[in-house]
Amino acid sequence: MSSKIKVGILGCTGAVGQKLISLLGNHPLFRVTEVAASDNSAGIKYAGRVNWKESSRIPDSVKELTIKKCSDVLDAELLFSGLDSSAAGGIEDYYAGKGYVVVSNSKNHRMGSDIPLIIPEVNSEHFGLIEKQKEKYNSGGYIVTNPNCSTVVLAVTLFPVYKNFGLKKVLVTTMQAVSGAGYPGISSMDILGNVIPHINDEEEKMQIEPLKIFGKFEDGKIKFADFKISAMCNRVPVRDGHTMSISFETEKRASKDEIISALGSYDNLNLPSSPELVLKYTDDPFRPQPLLDIDTGNGMTVTAGNLRKCGVLEWKINAFGHNTIRGAAGAAILNAEYLIKNNLVK
Amino acid sequence: MSSKIKVGILGCTGAVGQKLISLLGNHPLFRVTEVAASDNSAGIKYAGRVNWKESSRIPDSVKELTIKKCSDVLDAELLFSGLDSSAAGGIEDYYAGKGYVVVSNSKNHRMGSDIPLIIPEVNSEHFGLIEKQKEKYNSGGYIVTNPNCSTVVLAVTLFPVYKNFGLKKVLVTTMQAVSGAGYPGISSMDILGNVIPHINDEEEKMQIEPLKIFGKFEDGKIKFADFKISAMCNRVPVRDGHTMSISFETEKRASKDEIISALGSYDNLNLPSSPELVLKYTDDPFRPQPLLDIDTGNGMTVTAGNLRKCGVLEWKINAFGHNTIRGAAGAAILNAEYLIKNNLVK
Amino acid sequence: MSSKIKVGILGCTGAVGQKLISLLGNHPLFRVTEVAASDNSAGIKYAGRVNWKESSRIPDSVKELTIKKCSDVLDAELLFSGLDSSAAGGIEDYYAGKGYVVVSNSKNHRMGSDIPLIIPEVNSEHFGLIEKQKEKYNSGGYIVTNPNCSTVVLAVTLFPVYKNFGLKKVLVTTMQAVSGAGYPGISSMDILGNVIPHINDEEEKMQIEPLKIFGKFEDGKIKFADFKISAMCNRVPVRDGHTMSISFETEKRASKDEIISALGSYDNLNLPSSPELVLKYTDDPFRPQPLLDIDTGNGMTVTAGNLRKCGVLEWKINAFGHNTIRGAAGAAILNAEYLIKNNLVK
Amino acid sequence: MSSKIKVGILGCTGAVGQKLISLLGNHPLFRVTEVAASDNSAGIKYAGRVNWKESSRIPDSVKELTIKKCSDVLDAELLFSGLDSSAAGGIEDYYAGKGYVVVSNSKNHRMGSDIPLIIPEVNSEHFGLIEKQKEKYNSGGYIVTNPNCSTVVLAVTLFPVYKNFGLKKVLVTTMQAVSGAGYPGISSMDILGNVIPHINDEEEKMQIEPLKIFGKFEDGKIKFADFKISAMCNRVPVRDGHTMSISFETEKRASKDEIISALGSYDNLNLPSSPELVLKYTDDPFRPQPLLDIDTGNGMTVTAGNLRKCGVLEWKINAFGHNTIRGAAGAAILNAEYLIKNNLVK
Repeated sequence: MSSKIKVGILGCTGAVGQKLISLLGNHPLFRVTEVAASDNSAGIKYAGRVNWKESSRIPDSVKELTIKKCSDVLDAELLFSGLDSSAAGGIEDYYAGKGYVVVSNSKNHRMGSDIPLIIPEVNSEHFGLIEKQKEKYNSGGYIVTNPNCSTVVLAVTLFPVYKNFGLKKVLVTTMQAVSGAGYPGISSMDILGNVIPHINDEEEKMQIEPLKIFGKFEDGKIKFADFKISAMCNRVPVRDGHTMSISFETEKRASKDEIISALGSYDNLNLPSSPELVLKYTDDPFRPQPLLDIDTGNGMTVTAGNLRKCGVLEWKINAFGHNTIRGAAGAAILNAEYLIKNNLVK
Repeated sequence: MSSKIKVGILGCTGAVGQKLISLLGNHPLFRVTEVAASDNSAGIKYAGRVNWKESSRIPDSVKELTIKKCSDVLDAELLFSGLDSSAAGGIEDYYAGKGYVVVSNSKNHRMGSDIPLIIPEVNSEHFGLIEKQKEKYNSGGYIVTNPNCSTVVLAVTLFPVYKNFGLKKVLVTTMQAVSGAGYPGISSMDILGNVIPHINDEEEKMQIEPLKIFGKFEDGKIKFADFKISAMCNRVPVRDGHTMSISFETEKRASKDEIISALGSYDNLNLPSSPELVLKYTDDPFRPQPLLDIDTGNGMTVTAGNLRKCGVLEWKINAFGHNTIRGAAGAAILNAEYLIKNNLVK
Repeated sequence: MSSKIKVGILGCTGAVGQKLISLLGNHPLFRVTEVAASDNSAGIKYAGRVNWKESSRIPDSVKELTIKKCSDVLDAELLFSGLDSSAAGGIEDYYAGKGYVVVSNSKNHRMGSDIPLIIPEVNSEHFGLIEKQKEKYNSGGYIVTNPNCSTVVLAVTLFPVYKNFGLKKVLVTTMQAVSGAGYPGISSMDILGNVIPHINDEEEKMQIEPLKIFGKFEDGKIKFADFKISAMCNRVPVRDGHTMSISFETEKRASKDEIISALGSYDNLNLPSSPELVLKYTDDPFRPQPLLDIDTGNGMTVTAGNLRKCGVLEWKINAFGHNTIRGAAGAAILNAEYLIKNNLVK
Repeated sequence: MSSKIKVGILGCTGAVGQKLISLLGNHPLFRVTEVAASDNSAGIKYAGRVNWKESSRIPDSVKELTIKKCSDVLDAELLFSGLDSSAAGGIEDYYAGKGYVVVSNSKNHRMGSDIPLIIPEVNSEHFGLIEKQKEKYNSGGYIVTNPNCSTVVLAVTLFPVYKNFGLKKVLVTTMQAVSGAGYPGISSMDILGNVIPHINDEEEKMQIEPLKIFGKFEDGKIKFADFKISAMCNRVPVRDGHTMSISFETEKRASKDEIISALGSYDNLNLPSSPELVLKYTDDPFRPQPLLDIDTGNGMTVTAGNLRKCGVLEWKINAFGHNTIRGAAGAAILNAEYLIKNNLVK
C-alpha cells in the first residue's frame, strides 16, 4: 500500500467527489490521503460531514480523514478535482501553481488553449499540452481535464467514425439522467413523470468540446476539428446514464458494415479502469437502455445501437453511457491512470 | 338530447375507445348509442366488461349499453374507430361499405390514396377525398383518419413554418409517453427509470404522414409535400404527452420573429373541441414540459418552445402535445365535428 | 367583485402559498389583495419573483401585486398563512395581535390550547376557542389552523367510526407524496424508484393531532380523545396524494355494514370548497389510488377502500387524500369559508 | 466443472427462471444442464426463445441448451422450479415422483403438511419433513419450498425476536416492488407515479407462512407458531426490493438494546450464497431504502432500521429485502446449497 500514489480529492463532499472516493476505494495505483472542501467543512472528519449518497460504504481509509481547506498544503502527489464550477477555476490554478498535478472534472479550464481535454482512448496525444503549462506554472504542476458527461458519450461514439471517414455534420438529442445535476440537483417535483427540455449550458458544451477533443495536436497547439455539431438536451426521470439519439454525415462515404467495423476498432489501453470494450455496438433496435446497459464495463463502456440510414443526414445511431462514471469520476481517474503509466507525473 | 347525432364506438374497450367515450361524455353534438368490440365481449353490458382506466367515471349513458359485435348493424350515423390495427382495416371497410361514416384513429387506411388523413386546422381541404370514396363504396359511407399521435405534434408545430416559408429538412427526436402504447402496453419492468430507444413502426409513420398532410389536394388527389423528414423515437417514463426536439431548415429564409409570428397564425375553427390556441409558443427554454403543459387547451393545444438557431439545420425548437387527446381520441372527435359542421355527414 | 372579502397570503412564494393563490383564483367569497413573503422578496411584483409551479396560470389579479414584508400593514381582512414553520409562529402571532384573522396551514400553533385545529366537517364546534384568543390578543384578531396533511386523511376516514363506535387503537402506515415536502423539497436523487421510510416529525403529528381534533369542546377547552395511535410514515415516488394502510379497533363492536354506513354519514357543509362527498368509500380492493382518485371532489374528497377484518386489531382499511388540497391549502380555505358563513369574521 | 451437481430449471423462461439462471451462472456447486418450460417453448434453443430481462448476459453454458418439456426426462440431480403457480403443483409432484429433488419457489406446495417451507437460517430443522415425502413418493425424490418474497423479509426480521422473546402480535404494511409480479407483470399505466393498495393473495400468504416457518418440528410434523399476523400489501413504483413498516408485540418484555442485540445474533451458514450478514440493523431512521440497500450481501441480506416504541403494539421497525434474490431465486438456491452441504441429496 505504501507504494501507491497519494491522491487528494478537491470538492470531496459533492456528488463527483463522493463518486471519486467510491471508485478509488480499492484502486491499485492510488490511495486517498487528503480530502478538501469549502472552508465551512474544514476541520471535520469526513464521515461526520459528508451526506454520503453512494450505495457502497465510505472506504475505511477515507472515513477518518480530516477535511482540509482548498488552500491548505496537501500531502498528495495528484489532486482530483470534483469542485463546483463556481469555485474550481481559481483553486485548480492555485494548486497547479504550487506544483500539484490537478486532474479535473470541472468545466472551468476545459477550453483553455494549454489545457488537455482528454478521453485517453481518443486523444491522449493532447497530453502534450502539459509541457506548455509547465512553462506557465513553473512549478511542475499542471491541469488536465475530462469532458462534460454528455460530451464523453457523444465523442466516444463518433470518434471512430471521425477517424476513419471524417464528419461533416452531427445532430444529437440527449435524454440525460438526474445524477448529472449533482445532489440535491433536480427537485423530484420537477422531474417525476416529466421531461425538462433544457439544461443550462449543456448544448454549448456538447457543440464545442468534441471539436477540441477530435482536434490535432500540432506545434504545441490543438487545431480544432472542423465539422458542425448541434445538440438539444433534455432531462428525463432516469437516475444514471445519458441516452442519445445521434444523426451524422461523414466526409467519405462509408457503408453500414464499414461504420460498425470502425466502432469496434478501439484499442484497449489496459489501464486499471479500462473496460474490456471502450465502445460496444449492438444491432438490437431496443438498445442501449439505461436499465440494461448502465453497468457494462463497470460503467466505463459506452454502448451504441441500431445504426440506420437517416433521410436528412446520412446515418442515425443510438448511444448511451454512464454519466457519473465514464462521464465524470471514472473519466478523471482514467486520465490520472494514463498519466501515471506514461510517467507524466514525476 | 334527441337532436344529437348518434355515434358508435368500434373498439370500445381499448385505450382509445375508452378515451373516446370519456371525451364524448357530455358532447354538444354527439351521443354514444352503440359500443362494439371483438366477438368475445359482445352481448355483455359495457360497465361489466370494460377494464375502465380513465380517471373520470364511465358516462351513465354508456354504462348500460350492450356491447355489439363489429359486424352488427349499429344504430348510429357515425362510427368512431379505436380498433387495434390488427383488426381495423377490414372492419372499417365493412362499415363504410354499409353506408356509415367511419372516423378512425387506426393506422390501417391512413395512407390510402382516397383516404383523408386530417388535422382540421391544417388540411381540411383533403376532406375532398371523401367524394372518391363515395364512388368506391357506393353506399354513402366513407372513412376519414387522423394521424399517428407523434405525427400530430410534429405537424401542428411545423405546418405554419411550411405554409409560410417552405421546408427542406426536418430532424425530430421524440420522447414519448407510455399511454401511446395502450393498455397494458409497456411493462413497468421495462420503463421505470428507463428510456427505450425504439417504438415499432413509429419512425416510419412520422417520416411519411406529414408529407401527405402537408400535401396539395389537386385533381382529386393528394400531391405529397416534398421535403425530407427523419425521426428517432424514444419511450420515456411519462404517462401522457409526447415531447420532441425538432430541427428544421426552411425553403425561404426567415427570421426568428417571422417564424414565431407564423406559429401564432392558426385560425380557431370554433368547433366544440377546438382549443383557444391550436399552437402555443413560449420563449421559456424549460418549456414545454409534460407536467406543466399537458392540460393546455384541455389537451388539444400543442405547445412549442425555445426556437433557437441550429448549427446543422437552421432552427431548433421543442414541442409537446397530449398523445391520447390531440394525438388520438380528440383528433378523431375534432375530425367528426368538422364533418358535421360542414355538412359532410348527410 | 367589490363585495368579496379581501384576503392576504403570508408565505406567498412557497408551495402552499402558490396553491392557495391558485385555488383562490376564482373564489366566490375571497379576492387576494395582498401577498407577503420574507424581506428579500418584498418590493418585487409577484409574477417577477415567484418560481410558479402550479399547472394553472398565476391569476391575473395576483400577478401584478407587489410583495409585502410579513410585518407590513396589509389591506386584507383575513390572512392565509402558508409560511414555513421556521417563521410562522411569530408572524402569525403578530398579525393576530394586530387584529387580523389568520387562517394557518403551519404547524406552529396547532397544538396551542386556545387554537382551533379544524376540519370543519369534523369539529367545527372547536371554533369556540376563538373567544379565548380574543381575550389574549384583545384586537379582534385570532388564529385558526388546519391539521397536517396526513392527519387530515386519517381523521376524515376515522371520524365517523369514532363518533359512532368509539376507537381504542389505530395503527397507520403512510405512503406520502413528494409535494408534501414543498419545493424543491425531496431531491430526485433520493426518491426516483425509491421509498424513504422516514419523514421528520410526521409520526408525532399524526399521533397527537387526531386526539385534539376528535376531542370535546367543553368549558372553553378541548378535552382530548382518549385512544392510541401509532404511525409509520414513508415517502414514495408519487407527486400528489397520500395513501394509507390503516388498522383500527373500535370501542363498541360494529359490523362491516355498520362501519361502511357510518363512513357515508358525513353531512355536506355546502361551503364553496365543499366536495359532493367528504368521504367516498369503495369496496374495490385496488382503490383508492393516487392516479385514479386524486381529483375526486376537486381534491377535497378523501377516498377509503376495502374495509376488511384484521387479525390483530379488528379492522383494516385503505385511505387516500390530496395532500396539498384537502390536506393543506384547500383545508385552510374551507376553514376560512366556514368562518365567513358563520359570521366569525366581523 | 465435471464435479458440479447437474441442475435443471423448470419454468426457465419466466422471471424467476431467468433470475435462477443468472445467479447460477458461476455457481461453485451447481451447473445448469437442463432447462424446461411449457410445451410451446420446447425444442427451441434457450437463447432463441427467452425474452432475457436480466442485466447480466445469459451464461454461455445455458444459451445453447435446448428447452425441454416439463414432462421430459431431465439429465439433472436437482430441479429448481420457477414455474407459474397455475402449472407448478402437478409438475413438481410429477418430478418428485420420478425421483428428482425439486427446490421450488412456487406457492403451490408451501403449506403441504409434509413440505418443508424453509429459510435455512431460520428453520433448517424442517428439512426433516423430507423423510415423510420419501415415503409418499417412494422414489428418492422430494419437494422443498421457500416462502413468498414478502414473507421472507418479514420472517428474517422477526425470527430473532420470536426466538428470544416470543411474539404475540405482528402488523405489517408492505410497499412492494414491481418485479414481484414477474414480467410483463404490472403495466406501466398502472404504476408510474402511483400506489396500488392490493396484491392478490399476498396478505393471506404473509399471514400464514411465518407461522409455519417459525413452527416446531416435532414428531415428524410442524406445530405452527401461535401468534397473530395481519398484513396490508401495497405495490409501489420501485423496481426491486420490498420495504415494510412492521409493528409487533413480544411475549416477554425486552428492551430496545436486547432486541437489537437479538437482531444481530444470526449465525452465518457459510453456504456459497450466504451473505456476510443475514440481517443488518441500522439506527438511521431513513434506512433501509431500496436505492441504498438493495445490493447488500448481493441481495441476500435483509436490512432493518429504526426500531422504536409503538403506542399501539410495543415496537415499530422498518425492514427491507431483495424480493427476487433473498425473496425468490436466491432463497431457492440457498435451500439447495443447504441440501447439498448436509448430504440431503443422495
